[in-house]
Amino acid sequence: MEKSNKELIDKWHEIVYNKDMKGLENMLSDKITFYSPVVFKPKTTKADAMFVLTNVIEVFQDFKYHREFYDGNKWALEFSAHVGGKSLKGVDLIEFDDTGKIINFEVLIRPLSGIIALGEDMNKRFSDAGRETKPLIK
Amino acid sequence: MEKSNKELIDKWHEIVYNKDMKGLENMLSDKITFYSPVVFKPKTTKADAMFVLTNVIEVFQDFKYHREFYDGNKWALEFSAHVGGKSLKGVDLIEFDDTGKIINFEVLIRPLSGIIALGEDMNKRFSDAGRETKPLIK
Repeated sequence: MEKSNKELIDKWHEIVYNKDMKGLENMLSDKITFYSPVVFKPKTTKADAMFVLTNVIEVFQDFKYHREFYDGNKWALEFSAHVGGKSLKGVDLIEFDDTGKIINFEVLIRPLSGIIALGEDMNKRFSDAGRETKPLIK
Repeated sequence: MEKSNKELIDKWHEIVYNKDMKGLENMLSDKITFYSPVVFKPKTTKADAMFVLTNVIEVFQDFKYHREFYDGNKWALEFSAHVGGKSLKGVDLIEFDDTGKIINFEVLIRPLSGIIALGEDMNKRFSDAGRETKPLIK
């Protein structure tokens, strides 16, 4: 791993483990595209990406990274967490631009019970914030 | 990427893209643990892992790998596919033993609609094969 990448991953771990929302905001590019584990359509504004990511970081309990992969400016980070009493596993696919800002962020989660628990909690947070919500399961 | 890893990934692509089930069976260790995107509890027999993987390979339409990460004997492979008219993204987390056999295989899928479409199709296949099925959503 290159030095700059090592610095980036250390910073990223610090942000997630310490729930450092200001650090998170600094690390996201204004041009970020965010792909949630629940819905297909990506979020294409930094405000939307921040809203989802800050809430997800709040919702996850016992969050821990495991296998981590780096390929230049692209990362794949495996994690485990609990949401609403359900155990889940996930992968963050993260891409950086040349200035070290995150421009692409995709989250995948297993199993089905974990993704539903996360989606239900997130829908409640969207609703509480006066944002539009859709039924999780059609 | 080391030469042996390059040979392994070429072989793996060939198996998946050509739906080479015999090649798949040869590549799975007898000690494989398989983690499905739908249920938390892993499959711990090769027969179960083969049943799920061969059916998943059948169910996925327009399957294509994208970003691929390698770290020694561990891989993270991003893919896209269609299932029952739904677009989905996924990640395969794959680990090999010293003899080049897969000993650990974990699949994560987004979004929720994609994982439900896959789970419903898989449940039907389990049922058709006389295997026990559980309701997808409790």
